[in-house]
Amino acid sequence: MNQTQKKAIVLSSGGLDSTTALAIARSENFECFTLSFFYGQRHHHELHAAERISKALGAAKHFVVNVDLGQIGGSALTDDIAVPKNRNTKEISTGIPLTYVPARNTIFLSYALAWAEVLGASDIFIGVNAIDYSGYPDCRPEYIFAFEKMANLALKATVEGRTTIHIRTPLLHMSKAVIIKAGMKLDVDYSITHSCYDPDDAGRACGSCDSCLLRKKGFDEAGVPDPTVYTVQ
Amino acid sequence: MNQTQKKAIVLSSGGLDSTTALAIARSENFECFTLSFFYGQRHHHELHAAERISKALGAAKHFVVNVDLGQIGGSALTDDIAVPKNRNTKEISTGIPLTYVPARNTIFLSYALAWAEVLGASDIFIGVNAIDYSGYPDCRPEYIFAFEKMANLALKATVEGRTTIHIRTPLLHMSKAVIIKAGMKLDVDYSITHSCYDPDDAGRACGSCDSCLLRKKGFDEAGVPDPTVYTVQ
Repeated sequence: MNQTQKKAIVLSSGGLDSTTALAIARSENFECFTLSFFYGQRHHHELHAAERISKALGAAKHFVVNVDLGQIGGSALTDDIAVPKNRNTKEISTGIPLTYVPARNTIFLSYALAWAEVLGASDIFIGVNAIDYSGYPDCRPEYIFAFEKMANLALKATVEGRTTIHIRTPLLHMSKAVIIKAGMKLDVDYSITHSCYDPDDAGRACGSCDSCLLRKKGFDEAGVPDPTVYTVQ
Repeated sequence: MNQTQKKAIVLSSGGLDSTTALAIARSENFECFTLSFFYGQRHHHELHAAERISKALGAAKHFVVNVDLGQIGGSALTDDIAVPKNRNTKEISTGIPLTYVPARNTIFLSYALAWAEVLGASDIFIGVNAIDYSGYPDCRPEYIFAFEKMANLALKATVEGRTTIHIRTPLLHMSKAVIIKAGMKLDVDYSITHSCYDPDDAGRACGSCDSCLLRKKGFDEAGVPDPTVYTVQ
């Protein structure tokens, strides 16, 4: 570790987007601290993926926060509501999907903010994008800007003028295909990432949830072979 | 429960301020859902107080969220840093105190936001005040306004136009004495509240941390007998 190296918190879900965001943070020479959340997801495969990605991409530390969202409820990702399945991306219903988790990114970014202040980090990377974003309100640019503004009023470090917090969204205006191409240039091995909302016990992707369909389409449009093992091809 | 009654989330620390905020929410005829946090505090007395206050003031439900802030560190309230003690409020050091917890209110309000959406609540009450506020940046009006703005961009319920989130800070411009007078008018029994940062094993207040000193001064200035049992009078 270089003493003058700037630090960044990178939110890591174990998926394709957050892994690309981590690779971009690293390419900007940040010392990266990865942050993942267990929030009552139905499976642990994405946390295992986040752990191996943090190691593979040389994060200084990987921290998993347990959040009680499962008890609060309100989502197909945490409650006993079926994850919607479709044959292709055209069938993905419009509007905000059932997999929406109330205030998820707000809670995640709030923890990142706390950790940023303790570490003296100025940048928080989050892999949201406003194109293939599945309709979540807390992935939109106006939300991110409002969070950043609030963050700079919330902390001792910002109020005392030692830091300005930057919420970094390098994927915001990229399609899934463009994200994959950016990651390939940075030598990201996408075979170790996990996107599926509803994998089998072995962690194999279902191939038909919104997240799998967007991932497949991305590799297809990028002209890159999809390394994912799907239970249904 | 009245089906047309509006719902509110009330952040409850078990202390004097949040209890007064709860009494005010109730006086406005909200059905109140109280939310408390275990964040690695050195003691559980404030959570016990929050539980008995929720019952005494007729909250519909009291929910305690476990947050991992203790692992993130950075505060005398959660780490192995001595809580500062003084003889009177004039000795309280200026600036942001050691008891500051990084991003605490941001994390707390984020959970409140998630629960508000699930319950269909529009109002979130938080007992911050900008006068006797001990110097925390996330108790200032500009912070609260920025959080509210962000909140209304974050949720499915707000984006779809079903709700507008109001972060309610009825104590914002009240001194501790004015808060106590307001609570007395609403029949709050302050003997069941807990403010001390550093109580003994039996839960008795130390009488010399910032929080105890501000509480004592408040009762004194309000001309109301202080019902608190202090280890040192």
